[in-house]
Amino acid sequence: MKDTQNQRDYRNITIDKVGIKNLRYPITVLDRRNGCQNTVATINMYVDLPHECKGTHMSRFVEILNLLCPEVSLKKISDALEQMKKHLNAASSHIEVTFPYFIEKKAPVSRSPGLMDYTCKLTGSSGPDGKIDFVSEVIVPVSSVCPCSKEISEAGAHNQRGEVRLSIRFKKFIWIEDMIKLVEKSGSSEVYSVLKRVDEKYITEYGFNNPKFVEDIVRDIAIKLKEDDNVTWFSVSAENFESIHNHSAYAHIASG
Amino acid sequence: MKDTQNQRDYRNITIDKVGIKNLRYPITVLDRRNGCQNTVATINMYVDLPHECKGTHMSRFVEILNLLCPEVSLKKISDALEQMKKHLNAASSHIEVTFPYFIEKKAPVSRSPGLMDYTCKLTGSSGPDGKIDFVSEVIVPVSSVCPCSKEISEAGAHNQRGEVRLSIRFKKFIWIEDMIKLVEKSGSSEVYSVLKRVDEKYITEYGFNNPKFVEDIVRDIAIKLKEDDNVTWFSVSAENFESIHNHSAYAHIASG
Amino acid sequence: MKDTQNQRDYRNITIDKVGIKNLRYPITVLDRRNGCQNTVATINMYVDLPHECKGTHMSRFVEILNLLCPEVSLKKISDALEQMKKHLNAASSHIEVTFPYFIEKKAPVSRSPGLMDYTCKLTGSSGPDGKIDFVSEVIVPVSSVCPCSKEISEAGAHNQRGEVRLSIRFKKFIWIEDMIKLVEKSGSSEVYSVLKRVDEKYITEYGFNNPKFVEDIVRDIAIKLKEDDNVTWFSVSAENFESIHNHSAYAHIASG
Amino acid sequence: MKDTQNQRDYRNITIDKVGIKNLRYPITVLDRRNGCQNTVATINMYVDLPHECKGTHMSRFVEILNLLCPEVSLKKISDALEQMKKHLNAASSHIEVTFPYFIEKKAPVSRSPGLMDYTCKLTGSSGPDGKIDFVSEVIVPVSSVCPCSKEISEAGAHNQRGEVRLSIRFKKFIWIEDMIKLVEKSGSSEVYSVLKRVDEKYITEYGFNNPKFVEDIVRDIAIKLKEDDNVTWFSVSAENFESIHNHSAYAHIASG
Repeated sequence: MKDTQNQRDYRNITIDKVGIKNLRYPITVLDRRNGCQNTVATINMYVDLPHECKGTHMSRFVEILNLLCPEVSLKKISDALEQMKKHLNAASSHIEVTFPYFIEKKAPVSRSPGLMDYTCKLTGSSGPDGKIDFVSEVIVPVSSVCPCSKEISEAGAHNQRGEVRLSIRFKKFIWIEDMIKLVEKSGSSEVYSVLKRVDEKYITEYGFNNPKFVEDIVRDIAIKLKEDDNVTWFSVSAENFESIHNHSAYAHIASG
Repeated sequence: MKDTQNQRDYRNITIDKVGIKNLRYPITVLDRRNGCQNTVATINMYVDLPHECKGTHMSRFVEILNLLCPEVSLKKISDALEQMKKHLNAASSHIEVTFPYFIEKKAPVSRSPGLMDYTCKLTGSSGPDGKIDFVSEVIVPVSSVCPCSKEISEAGAHNQRGEVRLSIRFKKFIWIEDMIKLVEKSGSSEVYSVLKRVDEKYITEYGFNNPKFVEDIVRDIAIKLKEDDNVTWFSVSAENFESIHNHSAYAHIASG
Repeated sequence: MKDTQNQRDYRNITIDKVGIKNLRYPITVLDRRNGCQNTVATINMYVDLPHECKGTHMSRFVEILNLLCPEVSLKKISDALEQMKKHLNAASSHIEVTFPYFIEKKAPVSRSPGLMDYTCKLTGSSGPDGKIDFVSEVIVPVSSVCPCSKEISEAGAHNQRGEVRLSIRFKKFIWIEDMIKLVEKSGSSEVYSVLKRVDEKYITEYGFNNPKFVEDIVRDIAIKLKEDDNVTWFSVSAENFESIHNHSAYAHIASG
Repeated sequence: MKDTQNQRDYRNITIDKVGIKNLRYPITVLDRRNGCQNTVATINMYVDLPHECKGTHMSRFVEILNLLCPEVSLKKISDALEQMKKHLNAASSHIEVTFPYFIEKKAPVSRSPGLMDYTCKLTGSSGPDGKIDFVSEVIVPVSSVCPCSKEISEAGAHNQRGEVRLSIRFKKFIWIEDMIKLVEKSGSSEVYSVLKRVDEKYITEYGFNNPKFVEDIVRDIAIKLKEDDNVTWFSVSAENFESIHNHSAYAHIASG
């Protein structure tokens, strides 16, 4: 049976990334408290394609994924990146794994337990030298109270849910839980899944006493990341779904 | 050239709706203030298919749409519904037109002008008797301040953007503007695109003095609709993107 | 601490549904082959609210969910629906659980294994009489080859991925796997995650010999459902992401 | 009234981008055939914020947008970028405008007219030196027939809709229409909104005789862009919504 993909290509154009995109897959990821956690990922896998090759072999990506999964860890991603280069005759390979992640969080006063959901993304790339570049990303909901609205109003202050997206490169392994905690401490107040009335009172007052612009949120996160020797690069953005507008307020800082 | 769609079907199964879905199209709609407004719609068009017909003729839907557009009005939709029944040999026809709609709104104190965006949907169906059933829907952003949070907290109250979805059937034509206004008056405060500091102060205080649960929002809208002789049916839901949770609070009322 | 929600309401308007929406939660569901399967759900939970009550108690929904989960089954949903009515003083309750579901599927010739992903939704409602109404829904990707294009063209035929949405009510428990299989047998050919060249040849030829309009897909599913005594109601729609258009072809049939 | 945003900030952290995001706005854009075209945009506007400023002034972004719109052109974007720097005391400014764009396209044989919809994005950035960097992007649907499937199968070949995303930087103005045309010529066949049977036959056969992998599509576009002196940078990706899988095939090339 003829292998069209294996034919020689004469256009003399290297392809940077070719592969599969938006494949859903059940995975398990490391969970600091419980050892591991089951979740469902959306996965992209790409390699480069030399100028002389007509096409890549799409089925091999999924076969390598079948070997990688269900456990997804930096080690497993590293292995898969090498397998991709080897079995697809590529010089570079890329994996992106996006998934919801859950952490049990107790309400601040009643201690009622609830599961908070976050969105996480692990990205790994391996180049010709075999060095692997990892980026960890978390998307964390926070509550923000507007400092201006509080300052100028006789009572109350507009507030809203916002979403903070934090990506980092690091020297040694960093827990998703720590990235999330860093973000949650930087909003006006945290977000919970279960809140009894005593908790709602606490959170309302806590947030009101801790007003933050999107500018404040990204700066407070950036300060901590700049002080952290383990972080070699970061990008942080905050988007507030403004309660007084039908658009978002947005701020973004990237390191160096 | 053989017409596969025109073949006889022997499965003896009538199809309720068949046609085209998610077609983007530039349209103009009636605008109370400016006469008409340009926008971009996503359009669905369906007819029924008798049990003896193998398939409908998809290209005719778009041809009828080309005749209908760009002006979309209840009259134009009625005409298109009849054209669909005629040219597709159908007993019933359905059109759904969803589009963003813009209204200039001045900030409450500074009177700074800005354009607010809403999402609207017009649905028309024509049955075998030729009677046309219209439903008008608007999706309107509002701001809501939590009555419980205000009551129990020493200062502040959590608030957030919410989305109210109102659908109505009516006896005589009703302006989108009036449906939107009805909804906007029923939140804790309205949402604007431009707010200067004097406006932000006004809105913060206004909302704080007017706390509303999702339950309150749908009830206050339902009261007004029940009193309106022109409204023969309604469905109203409110979804608050809670600033203290990562999920929504939701309430829904449908008439009779 | 004052309980605002518990106050008496004088507007005399009953709310049909009030509760929480779009809460993400890790669950396990029954898996015919493996006993159970881990996945992540998006959950809505509502109750009615009598006209004399100002508000419901949102935190109780999540607390009941915490008791229900992680295992989600018809039995567990029934229990939760009763708990909701009891703890929220409601006459009716509703739960909607939407989640990706995975089934290992071997390629048709090479027998290469791969995981196919589907989207499923379980809906349960309990009324004043305590009778529970369940609806099971699956969204299944299929491949469809256009009969008209095949008939009129000298070679080839346009084809595309489509999505079939099947909802049913049933007398006795029905496996998600059986609903999915019924749908997959009704497209031009099935969709797989891993296909080697021998499989791609098989599927291409199989689909080409089995052309189907969206009309054919929903009719072939409807025929089988009408013959099944266990199915008391169904709704089936097929949406083809047409490869020759930038819109979809769509067909829908609902029983009685 | 106190101006919280104007306070001095002591964290010593410059913010790269701060502003408004996801604001819907009706605009008009240049249309080669008709002079101008009405559409609806989603707009982001950002400036940098010096380390000593606590916050930016969000309302000024919308006020500048009100002056810019409705006509959006490279000239108008340039003006707005300068206004943003001036009125927000910023060293750099950014505008992103995303909108559907429509072109009348006649069916290839019957010449039946129809409107095709594309998604376009204009991005402009102005730095401290006042030089403006523009990027034009189009997202264009195409049809692709799989060369491997055609080669190995006795009849037929799987095909599907795909989406090509092309971004370019250029020396002198380039029409959206030309970018779209370049992409449409690089798929297996073009996509239309109205196709009569004679057209469907033509397109099916044309595509079948012109099979393309995602790799072929991005390479054929890259070749033409490399030959075009007016193009100073490009990025092109193709994503095929595979009709035999539930995931996409993807390829990407960026220049230099």
